[in-house]
Amino acid sequence: MRILIWNEFHHERHQPEVARVYPDGIHTAVARQLQSRLPSADIATATLDQPEHGLSVDRLEQTDVLFWWGHMAHDQVADAVVERVHKRVLDGMGLIVLHSGHASKIFIRLMGTGCMLRWREAAEKERVWVVDPTHPILAGLGVEYFEIPNSEMYGELFDVPPPEELLTISWFPGGEVFRSGCTFRRGRGKIFYFSPGHETYPIYHQPEIGQILANAARWAVPSDIPYHPEARHIETPLEPLG
Amino acid sequence: MRILIWNEFHHERHQPEVARVYPDGIHTAVARQLQSRLPSADIATATLDQPEHGLSVDRLEQTDVLFWWGHMAHDQVADAVVERVHKRVLDGMGLIVLHSGHASKIFIRLMGTGCMLRWREAAEKERVWVVDPTHPILAGLGVEYFEIPNSEMYGELFDVPPPEELLTISWFPGGEVFRSGCTFRRGRGKIFYFSPGHETYPIYHQPEIGQILANAARWAVPSDIPYHPEARHIETPLEPLG
Amino acid sequence: MRILIWNEFHHERHQPEVARVYPDGIHTAVARQLQSRLPSADIATATLDQPEHGLSVDRLEQTDVLFWWGHMAHDQVADAVVERVHKRVLDGMGLIVLHSGHASKIFIRLMGTGCMLRWREAAEKERVWVVDPTHPILAGLGVEYFEIPNSEMYGELFDVPPPEELLTISWFPGGEVFRSGCTFRRGRGKIFYFSPGHETYPIYHQPEIGQILANAARWAVPSDIPYHPEARHIETPLEPLG
Amino acid sequence: MRILIWNEFHHERHQPEVARVYPDGIHTAVARQLQSRLPSADIATATLDQPEHGLSVDRLEQTDVLFWWGHMAHDQVADAVVERVHKRVLDGMGLIVLHSGHASKIFIRLMGTGCMLRWREAAEKERVWVVDPTHPILAGLGVEYFEIPNSEMYGELFDVPPPEELLTISWFPGGEVFRSGCTFRRGRGKIFYFSPGHETYPIYHQPEIGQILANAARWAVPSDIPYHPEARHIETPLEPLG
Repeated sequence: MRILIWNEFHHERHQPEVARVYPDGIHTAVARQLQSRLPSADIATATLDQPEHGLSVDRLEQTDVLFWWGHMAHDQVADAVVERVHKRVLDGMGLIVLHSGHASKIFIRLMGTGCMLRWREAAEKERVWVVDPTHPILAGLGVEYFEIPNSEMYGELFDVPPPEELLTISWFPGGEVFRSGCTFRRGRGKIFYFSPGHETYPIYHQPEIGQILANAARWAVPSDIPYHPEARHIETPLEPLG
Repeated sequence: MRILIWNEFHHERHQPEVARVYPDGIHTAVARQLQSRLPSADIATATLDQPEHGLSVDRLEQTDVLFWWGHMAHDQVADAVVERVHKRVLDGMGLIVLHSGHASKIFIRLMGTGCMLRWREAAEKERVWVVDPTHPILAGLGVEYFEIPNSEMYGELFDVPPPEELLTISWFPGGEVFRSGCTFRRGRGKIFYFSPGHETYPIYHQPEIGQILANAARWAVPSDIPYHPEARHIETPLEPLG
Repeated sequence: MRILIWNEFHHERHQPEVARVYPDGIHTAVARQLQSRLPSADIATATLDQPEHGLSVDRLEQTDVLFWWGHMAHDQVADAVVERVHKRVLDGMGLIVLHSGHASKIFIRLMGTGCMLRWREAAEKERVWVVDPTHPILAGLGVEYFEIPNSEMYGELFDVPPPEELLTISWFPGGEVFRSGCTFRRGRGKIFYFSPGHETYPIYHQPEIGQILANAARWAVPSDIPYHPEARHIETPLEPLG
Repeated sequence: MRILIWNEFHHERHQPEVARVYPDGIHTAVARQLQSRLPSADIATATLDQPEHGLSVDRLEQTDVLFWWGHMAHDQVADAVVERVHKRVLDGMGLIVLHSGHASKIFIRLMGTGCMLRWREAAEKERVWVVDPTHPILAGLGVEYFEIPNSEMYGELFDVPPPEELLTISWFPGGEVFRSGCTFRRGRGKIFYFSPGHETYPIYHQPEIGQILANAARWAVPSDIPYHPEARHIETPLEPLG
């Protein structure tokens, strides 16, 4: 399994309060969580300021599952790269969209909606309730809910298509709820959106989050069913016509 | 109910074999089907070659449900108009996408996938099987299946997200199947894709098709739930925080 | 539209604190809500202690949509009547299951699961969030959420199959969330489960609840697509075989 | 992974034409397919005429995934055993229901519908089309469709709830279509219904069928999320109430 973790990596370099929580960047924190749980996986990282944002055609071809974290610089992601990632997802690459990645160009492109939501940054508790006890992305949790001591509130209405699978619903003390763990399929690619995670809280160091993200990587690996992005003219029918 | 039927209206003006079947254009044929079943509806038409393709901001604001037929000129639809229709769908306008409209810019934009399929133009029989006997879009049919004597074959894999509701599956003698009636939701807008219909066959004159399209118009009218396309910062929580 | 509202009608006759809130029974309160919004509907009621629980074969045949409220006497509903209602739902009768009806024999039979949940009776606020702004059952609400000042807490995990449509998610101050408005289809019948409502709180007098229940009745009326409960041997194929 | 393959095992012992195709029983044919693809799995079989149908409480407790093949003797399965299997599925055991198992007591109980369909036994070709190219149950097929040279026709309307995932649609030359590969979730259990397979055709010897069934076993293993079949009174809220 070849995993690539993409991070815009601006907050951590420019905001001391973020650097304190993620001194090596969010991508590195996520990579550590995954590596400890998927020891045989080939895990790499890429960031916005690299050439082609670290997402060359070759690099994407060599990737089974892409993680995406962005926030303040969504607009700086080149349209050509978004197009390339989109094409690769349809062709089978798994995509795990993290937290503020809900507003990324690639997620909006795949959803076809606005993808916006309510939000508030008040270090609130978030209680994540399991509503699909069968799902492999939640395997190993062994609990009915878990808590994040300090989280950013994300609240409904979350403007996405109805999730194909709804895994978790989050509760916030300020009065909101949120469909925090959602799966989608596009082409041959599997997509998991997971809202917990924020640059100023140590959420990506939390074990439950690591467990869920590692499960999501395993879940999102591509199948080998052929996928054809173009229309196909079938001149000779499979069965003889009249 | 204010219905607008959009047609690219090129085939009918340039190909005699199409003009014979739809002398006043496919949009007019669809309009007649709808008007006879929805006598109190306000039904209008628009075509590609009109200014702004007949889809001005005002016109769209005054539309509850938009029908879309395009085929040979998808690329000539201005991106700005696609953007405008997309925004209006998210804001609640129903959208009924007909046949070759699967490859239209607006449908691709809303689905987030390639939307392609297999096809063959051999005047084959199409048998449309009902697989959701509860759905209001099929009300009044009163049958388990109906047939289209001469149809273009559209076959799987149809590259769309899993339909939220699957209403019909079509059978073709050449050996293919197709999810021919599918619903989707995007933002506050309801979308129905219906594959039967073609420029060289009189499918849009068939009563079952008229019944289904009239039902779809009724089904797709917008609700009055507020829709917010932008992110919203909620400074004051609904409940006091600790 | 012929609506039948079924109530076990025990609490109201034996518990003064319930009689104070629903002196004529919960069924009568629901009937008033519906009648004021559906003036042309034919609305009747039935209760557990009537012969055959008021649910004779004839009565069910004459019913388009059945509402179901039960709580303390689920076990007293005769299996033969449950069987009869089940058959009628598969044959097209809409079913609206209210609050503690989640534990009724008929709902459990239709779901195939245990249908249980967490609960607490502490007069908590319930905030009902809309998560499907397209749905006709929510039409006319015109808000993103509404509140119930005093409600019984119902919390996840709600042991039902994944709802085909998830309309609302409820928030409770005690820390729970609940999928409070869910639709299901079984055979030709449409089912809506709606959790708000309780015998000791005046929830069934609240306008939002009336609006939603009236919408649900309209949504649940049967279609006219044929439904066949038995296996059918098709000796003569529709198409000639080789 | 502990797999148990259940077969009513009557046809094979009483009908020579079935015994010729499955001399050791359908269960043994399925077991061989699975064992060759899941070498480390612990695979056992059970049949109707064994004590408790080979499905004691202990045996079910020791089973992760149960395969079910029945046809002529559905009624002979004791209700108490059905109840036991149902309970175990809700508690997490995967269930793979094969072909005529659509009419088994356990499948009907889990679906809540009639589960009937059209059928014809005419040794027709069945072409199985993939409509979900992302699904792990189809991994390793590497094709867009595959064919079964001689199959029993199963046709729509298949009276089940809308499948949570629709994997395949089958085409038959006699004019029918069928949702032949469907997943469902009930409680903590995952269910896969797969229609190809019949007692008089060697379908269970076909490699594609073996591949799909082995994948299904892997897919259906239980998670470790807690499951509570009973209602739970939560006296002390997670958060302090006003």
